[in-house]
Amino acid sequence: MWNIGLIGCGNVGLGLLRILEAKRENLNERYGFSFQVTGIVDPFRGSVGREEGLDLRKLLEAADAGRTFDDLGEPIDLDWLLSGRADVVVEATPTNLKDGMPGLDHVRRALAAGCHVVSTNKGPVSLALPELQALAREKGVRYRIEGVLLSGTPAINLAQEALAGCDILSVQGIVNGTTNFILTRMEEGADYDAALAEAQELGYAETDPTADVEGWDAAVKAQVMANVFLGQSFAVNDVERTGISRLTSADIAAAKARGCRLKLIAKVERVQGAVRAVVAPMELPLSHPLAGVSGAVNALTYQTDHLGEVTIVGPGAGRIETGQALLADLLALNRSR
Amino acid sequence: MWNIGLIGCGNVGLGLLRILEAKRENLNERYGFSFQVTGIVDPFRGSVGREEGLDLRKLLEAADAGRTFDDLGEPIDLDWLLSGRADVVVEATPTNLKDGMPGLDHVRRALAAGCHVVSTNKGPVSLALPELQALAREKGVRYRIEGVLLSGTPAINLAQEALAGCDILSVQGIVNGTTNFILTRMEEGADYDAALAEAQELGYAETDPTADVEGWDAAVKAQVMANVFLGQSFAVNDVERTGISRLTSADIAAAKARGCRLKLIAKVERVQGAVRAVVAPMELPLSHPLAGVSGAVNALTYQTDHLGEVTIVGPGAGRIETGQALLADLLALNRSR
Repeated sequence: MWNIGLIGCGNVGLGLLRILEAKRENLNERYGFSFQVTGIVDPFRGSVGREEGLDLRKLLEAADAGRTFDDLGEPIDLDWLLSGRADVVVEATPTNLKDGMPGLDHVRRALAAGCHVVSTNKGPVSLALPELQALAREKGVRYRIEGVLLSGTPAINLAQEALAGCDILSVQGIVNGTTNFILTRMEEGADYDAALAEAQELGYAETDPTADVEGWDAAVKAQVMANVFLGQSFAVNDVERTGISRLTSADIAAAKARGCRLKLIAKVERVQGAVRAVVAPMELPLSHPLAGVSGAVNALTYQTDHLGEVTIVGPGAGRIETGQALLADLLALNRSR
Repeated sequence: MWNIGLIGCGNVGLGLLRILEAKRENLNERYGFSFQVTGIVDPFRGSVGREEGLDLRKLLEAADAGRTFDDLGEPIDLDWLLSGRADVVVEATPTNLKDGMPGLDHVRRALAAGCHVVSTNKGPVSLALPELQALAREKGVRYRIEGVLLSGTPAINLAQEALAGCDILSVQGIVNGTTNFILTRMEEGADYDAALAEAQELGYAETDPTADVEGWDAAVKAQVMANVFLGQSFAVNDVERTGISRLTSADIAAAKARGCRLKLIAKVERVQGAVRAVVAPMELPLSHPLAGVSGAVNALTYQTDHLGEVTIVGPGAGRIETGQALLADLLALNRSR
């Protein structure tokens, strides 16, 4: 029986609770995974706990009705949760790439208290991964972060577990669905401004699209790729970065004339003993698996010693997908318990 | 410390031994995996054992020089190996799809003796998977078979571990590199006979190409997919099967004119409560990740409840790739020890 504590109950945290409630029996039968959620800490919905487990159905009903959780458990704080009430803490507060707070503080305190942590929060990973990994090792617990790279598509579990034993020589991929959507529309004939406007209408791109189109979001992913897959301690500024905002329809057409397709690629690789991380528009031959990835979809290609190239293609970000990443990490903890 | 016994030391078994010898320290550092190979049973190279571990370097030297293993350990038989000398048995004898022998007997006896089994042998999986899984459960051990589907590309680990928690609704893919090579060449302008002759020259296709071009190899894979991913007890004859030998250049061109590409697809899916398994040439829109898979490459697309479509693309069969599948399964056992 796993005692689960949840910090941050926005769309991602709720997505996980929905899956856990809907699949409780299924998870027990298929994976021998049994659990209770002992506490939830959230500044908006309320912080409540119950040592014998909260009622997930009532919590989800309250969330759907826009009510707080206040009458569904005892009032608690993070200290209560970290005092023996949680074997594993799910950290799902919003990403803050400036100083990582409050997620970084949550992860540090949970690991220091001897709890496993599973998290989709990119802030602590971008700012403090080596420190947090060392803390987890010292305490004999795990810090699992599947959701930080391709939402639910299991890019990290694939590399570290399914491909265990391979050396990973380089990783490159399409890690930002918004820019991939824009490039796909440009190839279909739209110019840059029209494609961007369409991405904004569909909710893929923000009103200020800088983080996507200038490659900042992809650069954070490339940094995480360098640190997770190639063992580096890179900061975001160690990533060479070029966005797509200066690409024209003529560039797209010129690539096509060469039998290629332009993609915004995040790539990390070992070059002469050092690791290089770069985000830039790159031409891929049409025969490459990444060239066929169209729309708001994510994909990574791993160059390995034993298998050559292995590619995984999956959906873009969404609340269910990110909840799935947390669940996969919980089930991985359960396999090695 | 794992005591490993190896049954069958052809290209696949040797591929595993090469990786184990080359990466001994690396595997211990990265995964805490330490091992010795206590015995090898092979009708051609010889059956030798040593309780404190055989010398892998000397074994590989002997194999490379075409010598037997006879002077590198005590003479043993399978009973010796299964009497407490192996925690895990690697079964890597040649596939026999008629009656599964001798692999089926090896797997049965090893599981009955309380050994974990990792195997790339399709025969026992095709003929007796439910029986062998039940025996493994009864004995509290694992029967892991990553290599039977896409060689080293981790199709089974991906579905069962990296995607754990998802329900798999259907799986379809390109599971026979030879026919995919032929179709790729036909799309490039060759007719069927010329493309087949080229595949034979390159060693992809056998002199008698029936197993590939009539879809028998793909049908065994589809049967395994139905049983592994969708929990069925199908025989090969439960798979609806159409090969590629009647396809003409005109069929390829007609698909192209519709914006599609013809691929030999193995597909298993739930249809109105029942599971259907089929192998047939199918038209895929160019935007589908499987449509871009060209040459002697394998790929599977999983339709899941939480993530929609997830696709993995990897290399075709080879000795290193298949050794990697065995290693990945050994490391998975080590994670859950």
